[in-house]
Amino acid sequence: MTKHNEIRRVAVVGCGTVGASWAALFTAHGLDVAATDPDPGSSERLSAFVAQARAQLAEFGLAGEGRLTFHPELEAAVADADFVQENAPEAEGLKRALLARLDTLLPPGAIIASSTSAMLRSAIVADCARPERVVVAHPFNPPHLVPLVEIVAGDPDIGARAAAFYRGLGRRPVILAREMPGHIANRLASALYREAVNLVAEGVASVADIDAALCNGPGLRWAAMGPHMTYHLGGGEGGIRHYLDHLGPSQVRRWASLGNPELDAAVKDRIVAGIEAEAQGRPIAELESRRDRALIEILKARTEVAGR
Amino acid sequence: MTKHNEIRRVAVVGCGTVGASWAALFTAHGLDVAATDPDPGSSERLSAFVAQARAQLAEFGLAGEGRLTFHPELEAAVADADFVQENAPEAEGLKRALLARLDTLLPPGAIIASSTSAMLRSAIVADCARPERVVVAHPFNPPHLVPLVEIVAGDPDIGARAAAFYRGLGRRPVILAREMPGHIANRLASALYREAVNLVAEGVASVADIDAALCNGPGLRWAAMGPHMTYHLGGGEGGIRHYLDHLGPSQVRRWASLGNPELDAAVKDRIVAGIEAEAQGRPIAELESRRDRALIEILKARTEVAGR
Repeated sequence: MTKHNEIRRVAVVGCGTVGASWAALFTAHGLDVAATDPDPGSSERLSAFVAQARAQLAEFGLAGEGRLTFHPELEAAVADADFVQENAPEAEGLKRALLARLDTLLPPGAIIASSTSAMLRSAIVADCARPERVVVAHPFNPPHLVPLVEIVAGDPDIGARAAAFYRGLGRRPVILAREMPGHIANRLASALYREAVNLVAEGVASVADIDAALCNGPGLRWAAMGPHMTYHLGGGEGGIRHYLDHLGPSQVRRWASLGNPELDAAVKDRIVAGIEAEAQGRPIAELESRRDRALIEILKARTEVAGR
Repeated sequence: MTKHNEIRRVAVVGCGTVGASWAALFTAHGLDVAATDPDPGSSERLSAFVAQARAQLAEFGLAGEGRLTFHPELEAAVADADFVQENAPEAEGLKRALLARLDTLLPPGAIIASSTSAMLRSAIVADCARPERVVVAHPFNPPHLVPLVEIVAGDPDIGARAAAFYRGLGRRPVILAREMPGHIANRLASALYREAVNLVAEGVASVADIDAALCNGPGLRWAAMGPHMTYHLGGGEGGIRHYLDHLGPSQVRRWASLGNPELDAAVKDRIVAGIEAEAQGRPIAELESRRDRALIEILKARTEVAGR
């Protein structure tokens, strides 16, 4: 198990979609997972989710034999853990108290990683006696498929150890130089979504057409390379320097023209009606399964390219 | 040739990267293409680009035998055209004059489509005698691979005819309900890029890490589905209505926290240095060829999913 450093036993605290997806990834890589969640029925939902996600991971050849156990009591779940992945609901008071409790329960060498998407590390570690061993490690849904893990650490060594752990699980960790609300990727997504809502509010196109424009245009390219590199290629032979010198001013003008919509009742109704038209009666579970299928095939295709 | 409606002969006016890529797509679908460009050496560059792009299109089984001819004179190129794809430089006066001239040269039934990314249709058709047969049909680089074509039409019937033509070429046309600077997709891309520049300016992460965060996170998902549908799935069983009611306020708060960076010399230098680090010495041509390879594999993977 050297590829995950010294980490052998992982505790998953909070077994909603995110926690269950983490549990699937960990066990598929051969790590033993002790899971816990106070919600009744969690154990059954966890087993069902993990079975389905493990079948998807087997398509990538990931068929490790990590043991998954469920413990109604937090103490029992984390008793022997080297690494805790915390996925409690996004409520700051709850998370702050939970992390402080985990900090008390665990020996000093263990790392505690919070999946929080919306909260700052400094806020949620405030009540910990040893805050430096608590990191933010924010995944994207579903974490067993989408590689990004955004890490915010108080101690660079702990950040590097967490990153090495996730890298060993085939993830792509990105360590932030400093904390920021929404980290990196959700800020990019929010910036784009604001304009996507604006285009609905302004009546420029339907919800389905705006979605189609993204995933048949820039979204498709962004599965291959990020925005900065995209504009590097947009600059022709002069690259990003040429792009910024010659087309930078038109970017700045366009920034000034972007919308700042209200997310009021009328706009919400229009978005909801637009999604109903786009979904064409397909229930959420079917849409999720189509998304997962597409992600799996795209990830396989990228592996193919990387291997050349 | 019924799948392209009545269109058999296409003229490509302006043979830079965009025009050459269109020419490859048209001929691979069996359409005869007459190309023109005033720039010396255009004919040779066009042939070389089309040969390479046609080899890529052959991977999708597109091996039509459309004839490609080059004509130094505009009149000769457009003489028999049913459809003109105009790809002149993005200078408003030049484009307005060129479209007016094309309008004079072509019989009334022919459609003239401008690839303009930055200009409004109303501005560039201002000098045309028959503006209604001129549409904006904006592709994404490279058009022979990326499916999106954004259409802005003055006459809904002409817009629908142009859309049917592109659909017959395996493209995904999106007709805008009204014109907008940057159309749809480049507005979404600009909104995201503003925050990507802000994160560099604020020192949150390196250029390479910001790029990696996008294409291993939301960008990967956006190759499978658009932003509205993504949040529909983010709402769990309650879908987009639940998402907007419960997480809408946190989106609005995040919108307020997004940056509005200056694209000044210091920020530009930081981006250029970041791209140099990310490119690791690979020249533009190699990066482009890697992008194309990734796009081809991802498009094949999506076809695979759609076929199930």
